[in-house]
Amino acid sequence: MATRERRSNEQTSVSVEFLWGGRFKKPLSQEALQFSSSFDIDKRLWRHDILASIAHAIMLGESGILSLSETKELVKGLIALMHDIEIGKVSLEGQYEDIHSFVESKLREYVGEVANKLHTARSRNDQVVTDFRLWCRDALCQLGKAILKMQQALISQAKQHIDTLLPGFTHLQHAQPVRLAHHLLAHFWAFQRDLERLKEFLSRVNVSPLGAAALAGAGLPIKPKRSANLLGFAKTAENSMDAISDRDFACELVFICSLIMVHLSRLAEEIILWSTPEFAFITLDDAWCTGSSIMPQKRNPDIAELVRGKSSVVIGNLMQLLTLLKGLPLTYNRDLQEDKAIVFNAFDITLSSLSVMSQLLLKSTFNTERMREALTGDFSTATDLADYLVQKGVPFREAHHIIGQLVLHLTEKRKGLENATLDELRLFSEKFDADALKILRPERSVERRKELAGTKKSSVQKQLKGAESEMEQTKKWLKSLRQLSERLKRYF
Amino acid sequence: MATRERRSNEQTSVSVEFLWGGRFKKPLSQEALQFSSSFDIDKRLWRHDILASIAHAIMLGESGILSLSETKELVKGLIALMHDIEIGKVSLEGQYEDIHSFVESKLREYVGEVANKLHTARSRNDQVVTDFRLWCRDALCQLGKAILKMQQALISQAKQHIDTLLPGFTHLQHAQPVRLAHHLLAHFWAFQRDLERLKEFLSRVNVSPLGAAALAGAGLPIKPKRSANLLGFAKTAENSMDAISDRDFACELVFICSLIMVHLSRLAEEIILWSTPEFAFITLDDAWCTGSSIMPQKRNPDIAELVRGKSSVVIGNLMQLLTLLKGLPLTYNRDLQEDKAIVFNAFDITLSSLSVMSQLLLKSTFNTERMREALTGDFSTATDLADYLVQKGVPFREAHHIIGQLVLHLTEKRKGLENATLDELRLFSEKFDADALKILRPERSVERRKELAGTKKSSVQKQLKGAESEMEQTKKWLKSLRQLSERLKRYF
Amino acid sequence: MATRERRSNEQTSVSVEFLWGGRFKKPLSQEALQFSSSFDIDKRLWRHDILASIAHAIMLGESGILSLSETKELVKGLIALMHDIEIGKVSLEGQYEDIHSFVESKLREYVGEVANKLHTARSRNDQVVTDFRLWCRDALCQLGKAILKMQQALISQAKQHIDTLLPGFTHLQHAQPVRLAHHLLAHFWAFQRDLERLKEFLSRVNVSPLGAAALAGAGLPIKPKRSANLLGFAKTAENSMDAISDRDFACELVFICSLIMVHLSRLAEEIILWSTPEFAFITLDDAWCTGSSIMPQKRNPDIAELVRGKSSVVIGNLMQLLTLLKGLPLTYNRDLQEDKAIVFNAFDITLSSLSVMSQLLLKSTFNTERMREALTGDFSTATDLADYLVQKGVPFREAHHIIGQLVLHLTEKRKGLENATLDELRLFSEKFDADALKILRPERSVERRKELAGTKKSSVQKQLKGAESEMEQTKKWLKSLRQLSERLKRYF
Amino acid sequence: MATRERRSNEQTSVSVEFLWGGRFKKPLSQEALQFSSSFDIDKRLWRHDILASIAHAIMLGESGILSLSETKELVKGLIALMHDIEIGKVSLEGQYEDIHSFVESKLREYVGEVANKLHTARSRNDQVVTDFRLWCRDALCQLGKAILKMQQALISQAKQHIDTLLPGFTHLQHAQPVRLAHHLLAHFWAFQRDLERLKEFLSRVNVSPLGAAALAGAGLPIKPKRSANLLGFAKTAENSMDAISDRDFACELVFICSLIMVHLSRLAEEIILWSTPEFAFITLDDAWCTGSSIMPQKRNPDIAELVRGKSSVVIGNLMQLLTLLKGLPLTYNRDLQEDKAIVFNAFDITLSSLSVMSQLLLKSTFNTERMREALTGDFSTATDLADYLVQKGVPFREAHHIIGQLVLHLTEKRKGLENATLDELRLFSEKFDADALKILRPERSVERRKELAGTKKSSVQKQLKGAESEMEQTKKWLKSLRQLSERLKRYF
Repeated sequence: MATRERRSNEQTSVSVEFLWGGRFKKPLSQEALQFSSSFDIDKRLWRHDILASIAHAIMLGESGILSLSETKELVKGLIALMHDIEIGKVSLEGQYEDIHSFVESKLREYVGEVANKLHTARSRNDQVVTDFRLWCRDALCQLGKAILKMQQALISQAKQHIDTLLPGFTHLQHAQPVRLAHHLLAHFWAFQRDLERLKEFLSRVNVSPLGAAALAGAGLPIKPKRSANLLGFAKTAENSMDAISDRDFACELVFICSLIMVHLSRLAEEIILWSTPEFAFITLDDAWCTGSSIMPQKRNPDIAELVRGKSSVVIGNLMQLLTLLKGLPLTYNRDLQEDKAIVFNAFDITLSSLSVMSQLLLKSTFNTERMREALTGDFSTATDLADYLVQKGVPFREAHHIIGQLVLHLTEKRKGLENATLDELRLFSEKFDADALKILRPERSVERRKELAGTKKSSVQKQLKGAESEMEQTKKWLKSLRQLSERLKRYF
Repeated sequence: MATRERRSNEQTSVSVEFLWGGRFKKPLSQEALQFSSSFDIDKRLWRHDILASIAHAIMLGESGILSLSETKELVKGLIALMHDIEIGKVSLEGQYEDIHSFVESKLREYVGEVANKLHTARSRNDQVVTDFRLWCRDALCQLGKAILKMQQALISQAKQHIDTLLPGFTHLQHAQPVRLAHHLLAHFWAFQRDLERLKEFLSRVNVSPLGAAALAGAGLPIKPKRSANLLGFAKTAENSMDAISDRDFACELVFICSLIMVHLSRLAEEIILWSTPEFAFITLDDAWCTGSSIMPQKRNPDIAELVRGKSSVVIGNLMQLLTLLKGLPLTYNRDLQEDKAIVFNAFDITLSSLSVMSQLLLKSTFNTERMREALTGDFSTATDLADYLVQKGVPFREAHHIIGQLVLHLTEKRKGLENATLDELRLFSEKFDADALKILRPERSVERRKELAGTKKSSVQKQLKGAESEMEQTKKWLKSLRQLSERLKRYF
Repeated sequence: MATRERRSNEQTSVSVEFLWGGRFKKPLSQEALQFSSSFDIDKRLWRHDILASIAHAIMLGESGILSLSETKELVKGLIALMHDIEIGKVSLEGQYEDIHSFVESKLREYVGEVANKLHTARSRNDQVVTDFRLWCRDALCQLGKAILKMQQALISQAKQHIDTLLPGFTHLQHAQPVRLAHHLLAHFWAFQRDLERLKEFLSRVNVSPLGAAALAGAGLPIKPKRSANLLGFAKTAENSMDAISDRDFACELVFICSLIMVHLSRLAEEIILWSTPEFAFITLDDAWCTGSSIMPQKRNPDIAELVRGKSSVVIGNLMQLLTLLKGLPLTYNRDLQEDKAIVFNAFDITLSSLSVMSQLLLKSTFNTERMREALTGDFSTATDLADYLVQKGVPFREAHHIIGQLVLHLTEKRKGLENATLDELRLFSEKFDADALKILRPERSVERRKELAGTKKSSVQKQLKGAESEMEQTKKWLKSLRQLSERLKRYF
Repeated sequence: MATRERRSNEQTSVSVEFLWGGRFKKPLSQEALQFSSSFDIDKRLWRHDILASIAHAIMLGESGILSLSETKELVKGLIALMHDIEIGKVSLEGQYEDIHSFVESKLREYVGEVANKLHTARSRNDQVVTDFRLWCRDALCQLGKAILKMQQALISQAKQHIDTLLPGFTHLQHAQPVRLAHHLLAHFWAFQRDLERLKEFLSRVNVSPLGAAALAGAGLPIKPKRSANLLGFAKTAENSMDAISDRDFACELVFICSLIMVHLSRLAEEIILWSTPEFAFITLDDAWCTGSSIMPQKRNPDIAELVRGKSSVVIGNLMQLLTLLKGLPLTYNRDLQEDKAIVFNAFDITLSSLSVMSQLLLKSTFNTERMREALTGDFSTATDLADYLVQKGVPFREAHHIIGQLVLHLTEKRKGLENATLDELRLFSEKFDADALKILRPERSVERRKELAGTKKSSVQKQLKGAESEMEQTKKWLKSLRQLSERLKRYF
């Protein structure tokens, strides 16, 4: 049969179906096929490939390139194939060059020779990037949901710990007392920026390249806006060559994942530190930590360690993708095939890391007494004392110096600030009065810190409200996003 | 004098002024100072540091923390210092810990002891990130302008080459004929996405952290919205700890730079390839290429090679920054000091690369005849012939196979498609009629490719209009951006 | 039963066997298990885990910690298990934490409760790094063989092309004529350096950590030198904590892979360039290139493109690993678990890339006529003309300038150097005599370039001999390497 | 004057001297010059460039290409120039393309027109890589010394803390007691591997490319082995094209730096952790830590934080270099110019980080009492108790489970292992006798851990001796290395 390209491999007698081959005199070597096949990776795009094919077929029909009956056959066949893959009747196995060859080849089993008409006016070049963009749009949606879950865990713990005080750290040294809720909310806003980036990313990923064909546009009178619309794309690409070459969207997605992982790694680091016997600020749930094969006493914060470790992998994924693209001439070069394994890996890690960390956090217990104790004798209200002097008219720079010397004096006497006497204070400045001793309590310190978005109770409560309002917005956005992928459903 | 911390180094008898020190018994070692000083790098923030200090002083005055006269003195002194640095009267030299110490120390020379009050209710932690955000906002503006210049160069050449045909490449093999304008515009849209990312980035960079103080908020009744407004910030941060910890904005800027460089590197690669004697598609201007110290005949595309090389550096800068942040606990850790050298480097390379590439391109000559010749005998209209058969009812997959065999046949006869006879065509399919021979001209091929945003003349002209309209929008945005930095000017 | 830790998951009723658990009140959550299990990745270490366990058991027996019969039972069971995995009777499937749990659990099915004694005086911490080092040693051996194959392909082509001339390029511009053999050998020596690095790497990877136990050494009187010797290790580690923490060897292996891939990517780039119609220096074999789904004429150098693309992935792997290790405190942190997926990926890509590239090269045809033509009119012998003047006493810098002006003159007349007349030469310097015209032939030019290891025929022939001698050395080394892994065999 | 190429820039009326230009009709644009000039970076190679030029001139003289008097003049002039740069009489300023142009241009001021003969039979292509290899060899030597200093600091502290016990950590949880000396020595061996890599690296960096000329070898009868020998190179390159293209040596150096930085970052992380009030294991010297501009009480481990941060920069440098090389065709491409800034940066950071960390460590005080206290109630001798049961015949896996349950029991009773009674032990196993209680002391535990290179006192002492012996070897090697660079001195 003329229409299928079987470049069977003689050595292995495996017969593989290619979407090309008329111009070749020898079959592709078995090793070259194995090396170049992307099916193991891009099989994951099966649903998107079928959906894009359905939209393409409908469009070809409406453009008069296919007859009505051909269109119907193709669409019906594709829907049946999708269904059979879903229920496991057709498995994503076998030796294929890629998911596109697989789908076309399987379709032929359902609808016969009309399958040979599906690839009219398109190329794998625009097909793969269409599939990939649809997949990324779904990924975006899943990441959005997972971030929201993470934020909910933070909010849930924050609400319980508005009145829990702990040392706020800079340089991992005690700096000033803060509310635990305030600390947890700091992580909330980092994730909120991730969401913002995801939201903006939508406008760049949701652009249809279908119809760019090989690179120069299709040679037949097609209607790309129609297929774009069916697939929920917001617009079509502005230049066919760019449509084929562009992988900015993949880079953006991996960059967004990288920052999510950086945020998770920072939280993970704190969980690991806080789990040490030395800190003992947090106790992980038995169901979320593991033991040692040799040391019977161990309870290890493995999940947090793994998340921290995996952040390196995602950062490296970003590097891989950018290095891949560097110096590539337009338009499609086979190097681009590597993009999917990279993006899938970054996405999988990020999604699962968000999920485990949100649960780990939710089920952890904060040791509030231990946190409060850590504020004893730690000089973390020294700045309050300097501010006290400022309010008495001492220039800040001078006040800072005075308190520095007081701290040195007390340290050598092995006393904390809270045990200083008025006489001791007055050794360093006569501006100190009896009220100075009162401001040294952490509970007082936090209440003085209203601005900017500080750790004062009312300030934190306001923050919480703001955070919850952001989550409402996110939920609405996620809902609207889900609707995009459902436009084609009326044809099923 | 009590208020200044001089931890003089005895070995070197250099006296350095620190913003801290009361609590220390020994001076910082000379080597530790040299290793930890950031002044050589962050001196570049001098203007932003002074502007932020002016806004801070005004705000302190309006909050009643400083008296009116103190405020005036500070503002006047800061403006004078800024002016003197501008005219070179004060040089950014000397041994300082950082730009903040430098400014405060110099200010003291102008206004005396009142300078000791400037650092009230702020920390270097919020100060440095305020400066850095202001700098990034300016950087954003400069990058926007440079991208626009690059786009203008592309448009300018594209307009002259609407009717220039060349082979469009995939896999660096001739694929289909395209218009040179179409090819150049493909690069335009890549840069347009860079602009979009810059525009969105504004909303995240233009947030004021000033007033977060060390990490927990300021202990005095300040008005951070006021200083934010004076500095043109759109809003204030939502959480003081996050305000200090957050370097997402730096990552985003370097990511945007990385993608710009990736886009430039792809263009550079084409310029290098097209400059080879084998391609000879482009001739660089003598003023934009260099020679060899040994080979007298050489004319090398050095600028394009350097841009391609430098893209690696910027990609690595992104890596450096993300790796830097990975696993850092909240809030400020000194590791963060490295952020500026990384961002400055990425920015400098990107800005200068945009500039040289736009000029290089503008002054290059495209060898239109050579491009057209390259389309002879290259089979790049083979797809058109397959589409011809499709229009005669042959399924595409079958048509593809037929043409593949025809190509093989002609190749063995050392003929191009354009020299094929009707008889030869009909050897492979009886569907061929005399009109088939006509469609083989590249000039015909490009005109058949309207969708999606294809290489057809009318389609390219429409694209050009769209591109020009985008540039108008960008100009307006850049103008609005410049106004942000000018709010404080009324106080000068 | 007391000895096995079954923290069954109630939700899923899947019962998983852990090597720890006595101290926990709740089972590990199913999601935490899935997230933290490394079995899917480290199952690849099955053989090395079993071999190391055999050596460990023998050593425990010889140390008197296990009885002779216990030792025999364990060794026999482990050998049986290894055999059954080899023949597929036992499959590497199921829900396990890692390969170590799998092996111990399966062993129990073979030998019963004595299996509970195997983990005496070792921890997974030393076990995993022992397995991993053994694996890396094997990987080193496989890479060595694959590089040798690549070198053989280069040598084989080089031998056929000693007399083939082509332009040597700098800046992708014609520089000076070179022999194709010389060009191909340039790649040979790059791979030779990879081999040198592999050889040196052996001394660092082949060090036994077995017996370091958790981190502090074993608490029982073991004989680690004995197990090391059985496994072919050259020595034992110098410090137990370092033995557990150290992943330098993994970094080195990935670095070596990165440079191999960089070398392959440079060769791949040339193959891609040389395959363009514009260069046409090389024709790939039909069995080693692929076509297009839409454009029937295409023959794409996909394999070379993929190798170029995959080099990015391996470079990124190196990045991942270094970033993973950055800032980790001693000794074992769970982050380290990620090391194996990274190393395996880098190794797999490098090994397969070496293999496909050596075959691709071997089966390619160099278009010698086209190469020779490219030297016509390309001024690539201009340096020879400058050297001619030098030999007539003109300072090189002056000679360079004279020839530069001559080239400009001829270019404007659209003539090549070989068409210059003596009169034309003498326009620029009176030192030119008739013999000057003779030296312009590429065949003469290459013969003047003997030093340093230049492109003169005798020089290239000497190089070839040197290269072949290196390959002989490599073969011997590879043989000695294979013997290391076979020491344990006498116990089978 | 004909011999110098002055492509003066008309706009700026700056006259720049190029080593090429005869073939150009227009001067290089000022912006292109600024963008492409490497002088700001490679001026650092001034000494190596002059030394290589001296060796080249001597060789040209000995080959009869230059006359004896020309040679003498050149050598004399070069020595004078080197001297004048050393004493600051000639400054490395001005607008030059690169250091090579600078040296040649300055030399002309000393010796007149004979300077035009220096560049005979060489190209900047071989010149730059010769200079760079000489520089890297020096760098190697400096790194070797700095590592040795770091090792000395570790040894010095280790010797004082053989009897200091602290918890050994895995997963940042207490694992088993270890000697502080043992812990510190773990870092020693990591640095020892860095030294080994440096030593092996010498054989690859110390290869002379001088004489490869542009790429194909020199066209005049030179003696490259002679110049190589004068410069202390161990051999000459095997292939002229590879000699020009190869930057493996640069990658290796940056890789070695990366691993050094990874090692330093791990030590830095521990210093940061141990400096927290929660750990309080270490107290930094006042001269090696810094304060806060706002919080008067702060003492921050800034140096360690910076080292940790800077490790990211060096890792990114490696990425930059590998990405730079990826996909570059042979031989010289201008992209390679970027190599030096990358290598210099990695080297500077690594060298200074080694220096500050060795001093920081040397001057730190370990809080031995606090470390010992940390072993109280931390269950870190649980493994010893399991081993106890093993010695009573209980299979390890069972013993592990028993102790796990004991730990759980005691934890719930808020008791440590050391407070357990025999009755409590016997609740979990009847194998426990009174002697079990004795083994729970950390002092006993460490003495049980002899193998493999464990924390037992005698074992640690042996380790110390081994370490000192390695340092002796290193000193000898460093001495031999210094001699290489001094061969040329007899000509001065």
